[in-house]
Amino acid sequence: LRRDLRILPIAKKQIGIRELAERAGVHVSTVSRVINARTRHMVSQEVAERILKIADELGYRRNQLASALRMRRSFMVGVLIPDLTNPVFPSIVRGIESVLTAEGYIPLLADTFSSPATELAIVDSLRSRAVDGLILATAHRDDETVRYCRENGMPFVLVNRTTDDDSVRAVVNDESFGIKSAVKHLVDLGHRQIAFVGGPLDTSTGWERHAAFTRCIKELQLASTKRDITICHEFTETSGRSGLASLLDNGSRFTAVIAANDRLALGCYDALADVGLICPTNVSVVGYNDMPLIDRVNPPLTTVRIAHGELGSQAARLLLDGMRDEAAQPRVIRLRPSLVVRNSTARPSARAIGRRRRA
Amino acid sequence: LRRDLRILPIAKKQIGIRELAERAGVHVSTVSRVINARTRHMVSQEVAERILKIADELGYRRNQLASALRMRRSFMVGVLIPDLTNPVFPSIVRGIESVLTAEGYIPLLADTFSSPATELAIVDSLRSRAVDGLILATAHRDDETVRYCRENGMPFVLVNRTTDDDSVRAVVNDESFGIKSAVKHLVDLGHRQIAFVGGPLDTSTGWERHAAFTRCIKELQLASTKRDITICHEFTETSGRSGLASLLDNGSRFTAVIAANDRLALGCYDALADVGLICPTNVSVVGYNDMPLIDRVNPPLTTVRIAHGELGSQAARLLLDGMRDEAAQPRVIRLRPSLVVRNSTARPSARAIGRRRRA
Repeated sequence: LRRDLRILPIAKKQIGIRELAERAGVHVSTVSRVINARTRHMVSQEVAERILKIADELGYRRNQLASALRMRRSFMVGVLIPDLTNPVFPSIVRGIESVLTAEGYIPLLADTFSSPATELAIVDSLRSRAVDGLILATAHRDDETVRYCRENGMPFVLVNRTTDDDSVRAVVNDESFGIKSAVKHLVDLGHRQIAFVGGPLDTSTGWERHAAFTRCIKELQLASTKRDITICHEFTETSGRSGLASLLDNGSRFTAVIAANDRLALGCYDALADVGLICPTNVSVVGYNDMPLIDRVNPPLTTVRIAHGELGSQAARLLLDGMRDEAAQPRVIRLRPSLVVRNSTARPSARAIGRRRRA
Repeated sequence: LRRDLRILPIAKKQIGIRELAERAGVHVSTVSRVINARTRHMVSQEVAERILKIADELGYRRNQLASALRMRRSFMVGVLIPDLTNPVFPSIVRGIESVLTAEGYIPLLADTFSSPATELAIVDSLRSRAVDGLILATAHRDDETVRYCRENGMPFVLVNRTTDDDSVRAVVNDESFGIKSAVKHLVDLGHRQIAFVGGPLDTSTGWERHAAFTRCIKELQLASTKRDITICHEFTETSGRSGLASLLDNGSRFTAVIAANDRLALGCYDALADVGLICPTNVSVVGYNDMPLIDRVNPPLTTVRIAHGELGSQAARLLLDGMRDEAAQPRVIRLRPSLVVRNSTARPSARAIGRRRRA
């Protein structure tokens, strides 16, 4: 970055790339390669140093907006996140930023408020501002924005969530492995009837985590039935609270709950507190994501940790690869999550089940 | 947004604003006003509806990048935040977004990793991409980026933090009022010796909160001395932990701590736990910000709540006002925070002080 600062000082007079090439005694294309951080490695270190020194002396400053029109490249990448206030996204974005900025791209973050209409308006807006590509953390299983990007030839990569049609570039979690670790942990503690508070089924995360849970129940022949499963329409605390409350109202006698993300799990904490039940004494709770601060809530949450930083960095790499090599095949990378055991899970106590009654 | 979507479909053939005006039988400037969400109110509802309908039928699509060059306006506003992983910023950004998007601007978020060099590189990069203005949550009391923006005539507004030179546009907190509420709350509970874990003194938040604390101590003639005060170089959990640990090592006999933000307060929790002290039984802790999830940590933190959403929305308004009316005077708006009392503060117990000893 220091280098970029040095070659982009306040312009006193506008100096062009041609003038720069003339002064350095090299071809214009050589200057162009040096000026661009992504292609600088194609020129010898010695020549690059010399050109950058001259650029510095002359006060050269790239007019990137004009060159975006000429080159059809803006060195901007749009990053769409469904909900900026969900603490899991900043950690994914950090991974994206680290790769993009190192490659001379500027990541432009936009918050879509989980609204497909807002999302499409933002993508359209970014397209008219000539972003070079998009990283979408917003995908639904059937996704209008993905269709729009395809129809308009905009390079894109999905992160954390993907579509049903897997002919896309995406970096996601091995949800099946994640849910299996959570169930196995609870079964090892002695739980046989486990409830599930799911997320929206129109997202791959919501859908796959739910599917993995029902598969586990069958495979391990656990006592959970449909009455132990509820699906929420949003990945929020409020949804988790009312979701688990509905299961408690049913009179279901589960001793543990798996929530499809940490925010739903926090809602489960609320629902338990509402009826005077204590976690983990009466009911164990497991979350998903391991978002920041979730290790500090009361009790610290046992959760499936997704590889935040790596999700982001691999998505950025996949996007850049696809932009450079249009023949590259789309592919879905699945990263394996890991279970983090904290204080929200414990052995079921015999008294726990008997005491279950709405206050 | 729906409306914008309808007038920005996928272009089959490029249609200009002139063609649109001709078809609608109005002047080009009228079409221009209707197309721009910010100026649409200047045209009668009836005419606007008619022009938008025709635009829809013809598949009109604004080339905003070209018009940015022509009009020297990109309808993009850069929003710089020092640390995306600090949960206080997304809530401020939400306020910024709400105003900007309603006015037809796209907020472009950038994370500066609290590094002035990165910050300046990003600002320079955004400038070459012709952003119309900047909202900086990153300001230091003496700020190179602010100087750069001034020298280059870039409209900007500071949010949450400001510079020593108050001839800027800024929306900040009334830090003096905030700290006074925290001290008063502790004094009302019976505390006389209160420690202070401060933030970086090169930021207005760090500087003013510390100054307000020392003023309070004098005014109320409390027992706190210099040995009860420590200053951290970062607003992080790690800094807060080592900061409070150093005071505990000093053998200082405080019964309560005020931390200059919530993350430092979490670090104080860690430092207390390290030596077997319990909050609030042995030591009360007060934070600052009321960031998301801080009501769920153990124990829920008593803290000074800043007006996140309003900080953001007022900053966005101040920027747009300044961009429209260059004669508008710079001014600093101070929003009053409010104390939120939770379980981290209690009366000092006589035993608390005697039991203080490093484990």
